[in-house]
Amino acid sequence: MHYPLPSWLSESVIYQIFPDRFAIGKGKTVYDKAELYTKRGGKLVNWNVPPKYKSDASHVMEFYGGDLWGIAEKLDYLKDLGVNLIYTTPIFLSPSNHKYDTVDYMRIDSQFGGERAFKYYLKKAKGNGFRVMLDGVFNHLSKENEWFKKALRGDKTHVSKFTFYKNGYRSWNNFEGMPEWNWEELEVRNYLLSVVEHYLRLGIDGWRLDVGFDVGYVNNALINSRAKSVSTEKYIVTETWNFPSNWTVVDGIMNYHFREVVLGYLKGEFRNPAQALKKAYDETPNIYGCWNMLDSHDTERLATVIPDKASRKLAVVLQFTYPGVPFVYYGTEIGLTGGRDPECRAPMPWNEELWDNELREFYKKLINIRKQEIALKIGGFEVMNEEPIVFLRKAPYVLDDVIVAVNKDSEKNVSVSVPDGRLLAGTTFVDLMTGEEFWIVGGVLKFSVPHKGFRILKALDKSKKGYTQYKRIY
Amino acid sequence: MHYPLPSWLSESVIYQIFPDRFAIGKGKTVYDKAELYTKRGGKLVNWNVPPKYKSDASHVMEFYGGDLWGIAEKLDYLKDLGVNLIYTTPIFLSPSNHKYDTVDYMRIDSQFGGERAFKYYLKKAKGNGFRVMLDGVFNHLSKENEWFKKALRGDKTHVSKFTFYKNGYRSWNNFEGMPEWNWEELEVRNYLLSVVEHYLRLGIDGWRLDVGFDVGYVNNALINSRAKSVSTEKYIVTETWNFPSNWTVVDGIMNYHFREVVLGYLKGEFRNPAQALKKAYDETPNIYGCWNMLDSHDTERLATVIPDKASRKLAVVLQFTYPGVPFVYYGTEIGLTGGRDPECRAPMPWNEELWDNELREFYKKLINIRKQEIALKIGGFEVMNEEPIVFLRKAPYVLDDVIVAVNKDSEKNVSVSVPDGRLLAGTTFVDLMTGEEFWIVGGVLKFSVPHKGFRILKALDKSKKGYTQYKRIY
Repeated sequence: MHYPLPSWLSESVIYQIFPDRFAIGKGKTVYDKAELYTKRGGKLVNWNVPPKYKSDASHVMEFYGGDLWGIAEKLDYLKDLGVNLIYTTPIFLSPSNHKYDTVDYMRIDSQFGGERAFKYYLKKAKGNGFRVMLDGVFNHLSKENEWFKKALRGDKTHVSKFTFYKNGYRSWNNFEGMPEWNWEELEVRNYLLSVVEHYLRLGIDGWRLDVGFDVGYVNNALINSRAKSVSTEKYIVTETWNFPSNWTVVDGIMNYHFREVVLGYLKGEFRNPAQALKKAYDETPNIYGCWNMLDSHDTERLATVIPDKASRKLAVVLQFTYPGVPFVYYGTEIGLTGGRDPECRAPMPWNEELWDNELREFYKKLINIRKQEIALKIGGFEVMNEEPIVFLRKAPYVLDDVIVAVNKDSEKNVSVSVPDGRLLAGTTFVDLMTGEEFWIVGGVLKFSVPHKGFRILKALDKSKKGYTQYKRIY
Repeated sequence: MHYPLPSWLSESVIYQIFPDRFAIGKGKTVYDKAELYTKRGGKLVNWNVPPKYKSDASHVMEFYGGDLWGIAEKLDYLKDLGVNLIYTTPIFLSPSNHKYDTVDYMRIDSQFGGERAFKYYLKKAKGNGFRVMLDGVFNHLSKENEWFKKALRGDKTHVSKFTFYKNGYRSWNNFEGMPEWNWEELEVRNYLLSVVEHYLRLGIDGWRLDVGFDVGYVNNALINSRAKSVSTEKYIVTETWNFPSNWTVVDGIMNYHFREVVLGYLKGEFRNPAQALKKAYDETPNIYGCWNMLDSHDTERLATVIPDKASRKLAVVLQFTYPGVPFVYYGTEIGLTGGRDPECRAPMPWNEELWDNELREFYKKLINIRKQEIALKIGGFEVMNEEPIVFLRKAPYVLDDVIVAVNKDSEKNVSVSVPDGRLLAGTTFVDLMTGEEFWIVGGVLKFSVPHKGFRILKALDKSKKGYTQYKRIY
């Protein structure tokens, strides 16, 4: 069952935050909060020292001190950027810095400021027009969880909540620190669904479902229907690293397929990106609910995969113009680099001298265009050329149509058929970034796309005074 | 509402005539008819002098003397060529040579021979198996029209038929000589629909609707339904310079998108013509009712855009093999040249020494093939290769299938999958122009396409005597 998407979604641009690494609130450093970490075996790290991989995985116990107070203090930064939907990785009580091993779903980790910080953050964010999503880790939990510890000791009240074998128990990816929930046990299911409901009623707008493929279709559907029962405005997105079709049991998935196609294209490895993006669009009824990923806490950062900034901007253009929700991983907007986990989880630098401000301004412009243009928000998607990539976002009203072109190589002139029979000859298309104008004749538009450049073109009726050829056209 | 196309349409090839420039009847010259023009401010021009643009637009008052008597006398020429649907630009009373500014819709202009010439032309054309279409200019009219003149003087009976402003009135493209009708006024609507009906009942087969985009969807639909009420065999085509989709309120449009794609391809500007033509086919339910344009009274002539004759023939091949009605602009079949209006409106030379007779024979052959082959008339359209362009016209009966290939560059060997599971291995394809034969095996056909050449291949069962592998295949 596929429900309507939340009405606010088409206006949204997501910003993902890894709370330990975004900002520390109340003017503190991690050293001022030392006890919160050290008494639980954590190691403190200075904000300016980049995280490094340790083969014994001890980097998951290295803390930088970021918290929900810090996020609340940086809302002005996010507002200025233009993002309006904040998704934080997990914030519930958990031993690790990433907190994907939940000990108690009903407690906000004190390292992040506890319940007080959460309620303050939620109220301030909502009061400033942001939507808020949490990360729901419902496939597995921490082995430090009370029920699990009891079950491990043979407590029959809890044994059926997990899956025990002769030696050991079922755990995520066989990481013994993360035993898996037995969702088929009704008590487990009801408990986890009550967690889903609880935070939605507290005011969050949705959940991102961690390892949603492990949670499975049925339980994704149960979570989604519980969320929609609270309100049809609640939003559920599943983590799965897939071609996006076949996940209509939720509102959308994290569209990593988009990332593979776009980055593969820019690296010269993927030869028919437009066709692949078109196929994904055609086969995914909930594509508008999916997230247009370029990076996240689970991947190398965009600037590390595509160091060349002109090329990188093309990826960002596609992210903001392809159907789906544009997704900004904290710091990527200022050019932050980083390899695979944990390098991609470096602290956000607040010394503006370390920022690529030109890039940030570019994001701001694109975010603004994305919020302005109905075609980019809800328009159809029609491919017009493969290389350079040219596509049409077809709007409900013809003069809202937008054409996007992306060219990873040398400057090219294109002459493309625009498949919209409402567009009359002589209609101008204006480049929303440069103001340049091009004319459509006989349904064909001719324009140039600069070297490693792009165009976002918007239809415009230049008819004057009393006369317009669009007077009886819609 | 999309009505069935007239049953006769698939057999049709259109010939467009600009009456002042096609032929003068009764052995006259323009000087013999001088008074018809001079008393209305017209200037006489000798048939052999090409029209030239004047910046004060005075060229619209230059007359060569062509009339409906002349067209009637040249029907044998048209019959020999093979065209069978004649579309004349406007013939109603009007000051200009093009007559797109109608003074009175119920009077045939005396410059063209008046009612007598019209009735004679209509009767003779129909008697010789031609279909006849007129040009309906229903968006605007001449400012010399009686109602408009009265309205301009403030006559309340007529003011609401137009749109007056504090200074001036709404006029087409802001040309003050062409005030626009207020179609939303019921009296206007009923009057114009009565004109539509009147000429259809007199015996014409259809209307071409001038600036149909200005007339708008609703009024196009009203005209179409009025025509279909007279007879389902009546035909309505709208002028709009669009991608052809979205115009199912009428039987078809003048497909200038086809022109842009084909000429752009031949000029090396348009890179994915097959894909664009396929998209247009897929998205246009009434594509078979559209006109495959290469030129008209509103464009440069084909021979001027594509002077190289071998290349030009490729355009003509596509015109006769793409779904839709092939459209021949008078004189283009003999290689007439001419730039934009008014150069493209030069008189038809009747001195055969001025004709490219080889080209005319080529048109005759193509017209004949087009009328013979059911696949070209009503077959499906499947693209098999982009460069050279290769496509299948899929017929109701398998052995009527036709494959078309067009190659704008050097000779190429192609090996293409023919997407028709009814075609058995060993089936021969015969080149309808050269008689060469090629075999299909495993659904794949291999053949060469000459330098700037083409192929029109027809399926053929070469089984002998009692045996045919097609005996239980359809």
